[in-house]
Amino acid sequence: MVGAGTNKSKSPLTHSLSIILVRPQLAVNIGMCARAMANFGLSDLRLVAPKCGWPPSPEWHEAAISSAAGAAHILEGLKLYDTLDEAIADLNYVWASTARERGQAKPVLSPKVAMTQAASGFLQGERHGILFGPERTGLENDEVGVAHAILTFPVDPAYASLNLAQAVLLTAYEFFQASTGDLLPYAAPNRSPPAPYALTASFFEYVENALDEVGFFRPPQKKPIMARNLRNMFNRMSMSVQDVRTLRGAFVRLIEGRRKEP
Amino acid sequence: MVGAGTNKSKSPLTHSLSIILVRPQLAVNIGMCARAMANFGLSDLRLVAPKCGWPPSPEWHEAAISSAAGAAHILEGLKLYDTLDEAIADLNYVWASTARERGQAKPVLSPKVAMTQAASGFLQGERHGILFGPERTGLENDEVGVAHAILTFPVDPAYASLNLAQAVLLTAYEFFQASTGDLLPYAAPNRSPPAPYALTASFFEYVENALDEVGFFRPPQKKPIMARNLRNMFNRMSMSVQDVRTLRGAFVRLIEGRRKEP
Repeated sequence: MVGAGTNKSKSPLTHSLSIILVRPQLAVNIGMCARAMANFGLSDLRLVAPKCGWPPSPEWHEAAISSAAGAAHILEGLKLYDTLDEAIADLNYVWASTARERGQAKPVLSPKVAMTQAASGFLQGERHGILFGPERTGLENDEVGVAHAILTFPVDPAYASLNLAQAVLLTAYEFFQASTGDLLPYAAPNRSPPAPYALTASFFEYVENALDEVGFFRPPQKKPIMARNLRNMFNRMSMSVQDVRTLRGAFVRLIEGRRKEP
Repeated sequence: MVGAGTNKSKSPLTHSLSIILVRPQLAVNIGMCARAMANFGLSDLRLVAPKCGWPPSPEWHEAAISSAAGAAHILEGLKLYDTLDEAIADLNYVWASTARERGQAKPVLSPKVAMTQAASGFLQGERHGILFGPERTGLENDEVGVAHAILTFPVDPAYASLNLAQAVLLTAYEFFQASTGDLLPYAAPNRSPPAPYALTASFFEYVENALDEVGFFRPPQKKPIMARNLRNMFNRMSMSVQDVRTLRGAFVRLIEGRRKEP
């Protein structure tokens, strides 16, 4: 193992899950995997006997850093191994990612279910890692053999080929969600509090009275159901206090006519 | 609208969700989006005023087809619009994908929740579409304005930039899962049925008797708990009939010694 470097991410997940690329072919794909990891707070990237070498030739190294798009710290900190056995020596649980059925008697799970298990294992002190094979051929059967379970993707069988970085992305995404509970980076702005019942009811009464005066409810016996439908439409807006004020102002103007110029 | 072409996918989801790229900059990214859509059974791709033009120059067209990696049928069938209004005219519900908070009073949902709603809407006859903005800048506020709700991704806030094709991939993945229920393309092979209780119990008794004879259970009063621990370990294997036969054979050989040569 060489090249254990710094890690600039502040994510608490940073070393919770190891991404292990077995004999990856292209340096740019390694860069794209690093970017996908960074998006979801991971940073423990391991390479086993990369075909492109590591570090690759200067030209390809530059391309890899460019495709990592700001996640270069993960490339700087990646760990390099000669054999798969060394790369997984410290792990408690190993997942093999594979698109094809391998005839091996292991559990086969979706990323959602697998990463829920991995996140739960992490909380209990386990270290999990996921093996991804070379771009063109995937993992060899012997490599799948070392894993405790298989992870495969729910894809359209007519078009099942995910590229390497996409497979890493979906896996990291599910791990992040399982670990953080689908937390979003921001919520809907809430500049005005939700309107209390009395405020909306008063607005509805105002509008209904005005509609009554202009003969909107016809025949008159249909008024209750027509009014209820209107209230339902407005309630679907989940109005804030400000929304009610704005709407009421609009109706007042429509009903009372254009403001007299001073 | 020009260029409505053929669709070779057999997925029932094929026109259930529209992916709308607003002013995309790079033809290769359009190709990568097409690939991500194909992975999850989608094919209705719409471009609004692509900055790269469409079709782009021959050189970039070739690059786009290459990055679509077999999903060229989606590029052939994409629809081209001058304005966003035209691109969404037939849709019932529009989602805006945006990484930044926009101060607009709309629901903000994760892809998982949003796509569960979209899949459920599709079953009720609604047509949903998702807007993705230009690579560098994202959607303009006016463009977010036409949407019914906002979709954003649960990412590490320290490193929130997803590229265009990754955002499309995660969205299509969640829609596919919500529509198909996390169906995997294959399951664990099941070449031998799960072992019935009596078979495993008989195996355990055989092993325990043999261990008793060689004085394994010490002190003797600890036998019950030691035996229970052993049974628990083996039960975690979820043995098939064949597994029990194989293991029993192995123990028999260990216990009775090497077979006598004929």
